[in-house]
Amino acid sequence: MRPAGADAGGGRSLRLRLDVSYDGTDFSGWAEQPGRRTVQGVLQAALGRVLRTKPPKLGVAGRTDAGVHATGQVCHADVEQSAWLAVPGRSVRAPAHALALRLADVLPPDVRVRSAIVAPPGFDARFSALWRRYAYRVSDAGYGVDPLRRRFVLWYRRAVDVAAMAAAGAGLLGEHDYAAFCRLRPGASTVRTIRTLHWARTEEGLAVATIEADGFCHNQVRAMVGALLAVGDGRRPIDWPAQLLAAKVRDPAVTVVPPHGLTLEAVGYPPDASE
Amino acid sequence: MRPAGADAGGGRSLRLRLDVSYDGTDFSGWAEQPGRRTVQGVLQAALGRVLRTKPPKLGVAGRTDAGVHATGQVCHADVEQSAWLAVPGRSVRAPAHALALRLADVLPPDVRVRSAIVAPPGFDARFSALWRRYAYRVSDAGYGVDPLRRRFVLWYRRAVDVAAMAAAGAGLLGEHDYAAFCRLRPGASTVRTIRTLHWARTEEGLAVATIEADGFCHNQVRAMVGALLAVGDGRRPIDWPAQLLAAKVRDPAVTVVPPHGLTLEAVGYPPDASE
Repeated sequence: MRPAGADAGGGRSLRLRLDVSYDGTDFSGWAEQPGRRTVQGVLQAALGRVLRTKPPKLGVAGRTDAGVHATGQVCHADVEQSAWLAVPGRSVRAPAHALALRLADVLPPDVRVRSAIVAPPGFDARFSALWRRYAYRVSDAGYGVDPLRRRFVLWYRRAVDVAAMAAAGAGLLGEHDYAAFCRLRPGASTVRTIRTLHWARTEEGLAVATIEADGFCHNQVRAMVGALLAVGDGRRPIDWPAQLLAAKVRDPAVTVVPPHGLTLEAVGYPPDASE
Repeated sequence: MRPAGADAGGGRSLRLRLDVSYDGTDFSGWAEQPGRRTVQGVLQAALGRVLRTKPPKLGVAGRTDAGVHATGQVCHADVEQSAWLAVPGRSVRAPAHALALRLADVLPPDVRVRSAIVAPPGFDARFSALWRRYAYRVSDAGYGVDPLRRRFVLWYRRAVDVAAMAAAGAGLLGEHDYAAFCRLRPGASTVRTIRTLHWARTEEGLAVATIEADGFCHNQVRAMVGALLAVGDGRRPIDWPAQLLAAKVRDPAVTVVPPHGLTLEAVGYPPDASE
């Protein structure tokens, strides 16, 4: 964590916590990349414009891939105290949300800052996070996906058995080396703790996986969902995902499902590191 | 109603009932127009392709305007019995839905046929309908609209009082001449019966109007919602919409709200005219 109280320009700084939602369809993911439209890039530019400073660098809880959505993303930025204090309306109506209101007029409609507040001492969007929760949505209706949700739901052409997928998912819970489901990065651990993995048919034709862990390695959720769907449609036995996990190596038989069914829904922080 | 049992080509025909959903964003409304992408045009072409016939003409419950969505639209088509019987898979798995399954592969993802079945005797999507139900969705959150729903929710920049709008809406219930809220069409009656008009805050920042009537004249829902929002944000008194209604002439002070917040959610038929 960088020392509090001083920004890159040497002035007095403070750390902001931003709660963010976005439709990932038209973004090349969270992380900024030269020449690409990314959530981080768009947000940093908007913050610089509203604060009339150099775009501040954002730290983030979940570096979502291209096409992945978020309704509960959390990030932080260190900004000059003077710039924060100069946000119009800050001291008038709803001062804590004045920055979010200004950003609403500057950001494109596919990304919204729901709240922008001064973070508690020591807060870091990435390192303070205790858990991340993702949802993956699948339609197995023969007619396809509800047009009003087609950007956020995968059309899966085989009917799936939600109870079988839930049973298979139970075999992936706990603290394990999830290398079987991760795109490996040199030197990065693939040990994680999955606290929740359940499937529910929230309405006819719509099956939703909810997965919560301390963190996820790259592609992990989408690879696990791919393995579970193979159980759900009857192609694999219920203990297949647990067998994959135990093997600790990637199996080419596992399909990484497309990004657009995936949404980062919530990030948890300890009580003293949230509002 | 056209006589049952004979189609335009002289062969034996039958009437199909189609239950349809669409994202209206990229359509020039329901009704076909030369050179425009319309729901009716796209659906008729897809039906012709799957049935290998001339595109059949569709009758419809609600002729939605450009930009208006539907989750519960109902339409009918008279098709040659021989073409219906020739739909692949019709007699194998889920015969009643074989046509819907075939249409899923032919239609663009912003329109879906959830069900396509032989209609009961005398069924007419327009004239058999007893009621239509629309929802209009408004976000009055300072940060804007949830990016995942921005195509279907109006961003209203003033906070609204849902209880005040519900009270004002009660003054519009019953059988009345709604000329004050209708774009007049020569010779068309503007007398309608509104059975339900309520507002609910379904979650923080989201207010939803639900309006059910035997039918609606052109622009009626959007003009009524515009009048109610003016009550909700405090610019007009609660009895203003009822006063407008009583005047029976359009008042330029009424704003017709944009189409994208509006969704046709359900159409009701008598028991013997539905499945």
